[in-house]
Amino acid sequence: MTDNYSIINGEFYKTSEANVLITDLAVQRGYGIFDFFVTVKGEPVFLEDHLDRFYNSAAIMRLTLIPSRETLKKLIYGLIEKNNMPDSGIRITLTGGFSSDGYSLAKPNVLITQNGFVYNKESFYKGINLVTHNFQRQLPQVKTIDYLQAIYLQPFIKENNADDVLYHNEGELRECPRANFFLVTKDNEIVTAENNVLWGVNRKKILSFTEFGAKATTVRLEDIDTAKEAFITSTTKFVLPVLNINGKKIGNGLPGEVSTKLFDNLYNLRMNG
Amino acid sequence: MTDNYSIINGEFYKTSEANVLITDLAVQRGYGIFDFFVTVKGEPVFLEDHLDRFYNSAAIMRLTLIPSRETLKKLIYGLIEKNNMPDSGIRITLTGGFSSDGYSLAKPNVLITQNGFVYNKESFYKGINLVTHNFQRQLPQVKTIDYLQAIYLQPFIKENNADDVLYHNEGELRECPRANFFLVTKDNEIVTAENNVLWGVNRKKILSFTEFGAKATTVRLEDIDTAKEAFITSTTKFVLPVLNINGKKIGNGLPGEVSTKLFDNLYNLRMNG
Repeated sequence: MTDNYSIINGEFYKTSEANVLITDLAVQRGYGIFDFFVTVKGEPVFLEDHLDRFYNSAAIMRLTLIPSRETLKKLIYGLIEKNNMPDSGIRITLTGGFSSDGYSLAKPNVLITQNGFVYNKESFYKGINLVTHNFQRQLPQVKTIDYLQAIYLQPFIKENNADDVLYHNEGELRECPRANFFLVTKDNEIVTAENNVLWGVNRKKILSFTEFGAKATTVRLEDIDTAKEAFITSTTKFVLPVLNINGKKIGNGLPGEVSTKLFDNLYNLRMNG
Repeated sequence: MTDNYSIINGEFYKTSEANVLITDLAVQRGYGIFDFFVTVKGEPVFLEDHLDRFYNSAAIMRLTLIPSRETLKKLIYGLIEKNNMPDSGIRITLTGGFSSDGYSLAKPNVLITQNGFVYNKESFYKGINLVTHNFQRQLPQVKTIDYLQAIYLQPFIKENNADDVLYHNEGELRECPRANFFLVTKDNEIVTAENNVLWGVNRKKILSFTEFGAKATTVRLEDIDTAKEAFITSTTKFVLPVLNINGKKIGNGLPGEVSTKLFDNLYNLRMNG
């Protein structure tokens, strides 16, 4: 990995030298939030949506004394320029800060990192396989740094010949660790979990395409059995067809018609605003 | 706070300068485990029990390439000497390491920190108040760094005039974020949650006092209503009476006879081995 710059509390650091004290509540207690967006030709995609969610996550987690929206934007554009990296993924993290007692919140540390990212539509055609697992993310509407379960489950995912895990809570479908999940039902309805999931920015865009009428509702494990199509949405995955869940084909096991149309719509919106 | 030394991957650092890269999986994904024990007159208390649990947590979380038990012990005694701090709390943390993709496990960073700690029996007489909350810790038998919920709930705890929160899962009692919970029932049985909790070292000691016959079993919310005594156990709290739960007195609202006897037994064991 070539080295580049990151920003910590408004200052540039070589990423290979960018660090936080081990007394930070992220290290001590896993306490922090973040958001993540991509840039295309130097322009952040859906930035306002991501910043809305970022400040909402921070407020819920009582992370205060943080940079204003304008300051944050300046830092983001500054980093894109400094790294000379127009096509990328950018992550803004707020940690719990350096806590004197290792438990009480302190002034958050603000970390901004950038990595190269270019979307490749090959991934759309390839699709992915999922395996389901009973688990409810804590504080689901906050984009916390908690991916304990997701990383813990990696061997389980591999053993099941899957690419990722789909969480459900006692049969009610939720989400993947880093993506929202949609089904096209036997009645041609496009559905995704309404509550107890992260409200993804790309999920929101899909729900906003009025001509498709996708809706957020209760979706259950057994709805998978009769579904015509399934796909996930995320910042790096756009719309990504799910071809197989728990070893069973979805529809004919190929990217479906609705998924393809939704992909095209989302792609246009992302690339052309 | 006066500065002292910490150890990172076998090297001493001033704690005020002890840091990890922001690419560490603890910062990025909240992935890590730890253990914590106290020292009295330079001697770690129940060290073998804590190391047993530490290596067990590491194994479950697939944190490999870590120091041997002998190496770790040398580092611990080295830190006690370097800091000239015979009475203390020592924390050993393993992080997920510097991950190139921000998701896959890497070589763990091994952090050892020390803070002054002397037990004061005043706290026993004062006791604490708890408020209950429906929540199940993920990977409960692993001492992960995940205290997201506990820190998030601090305002809720204060609003309820409590000192800490007691988790239950749909009515089945679990634990406090940093302590195990026991009841003395109306039938004079000493009980604590059997499963889906961290198996605390001091909990284990209480269960090992054969003359008391404490047992790990299913304990429910409604058992609190008729309980004669309640207490929590932890490395820093020893046996600490719970005088009030959800605004209702336990027994006569004073530290009880069984709690007092268990405290004396545990205190003796801890201080005199």
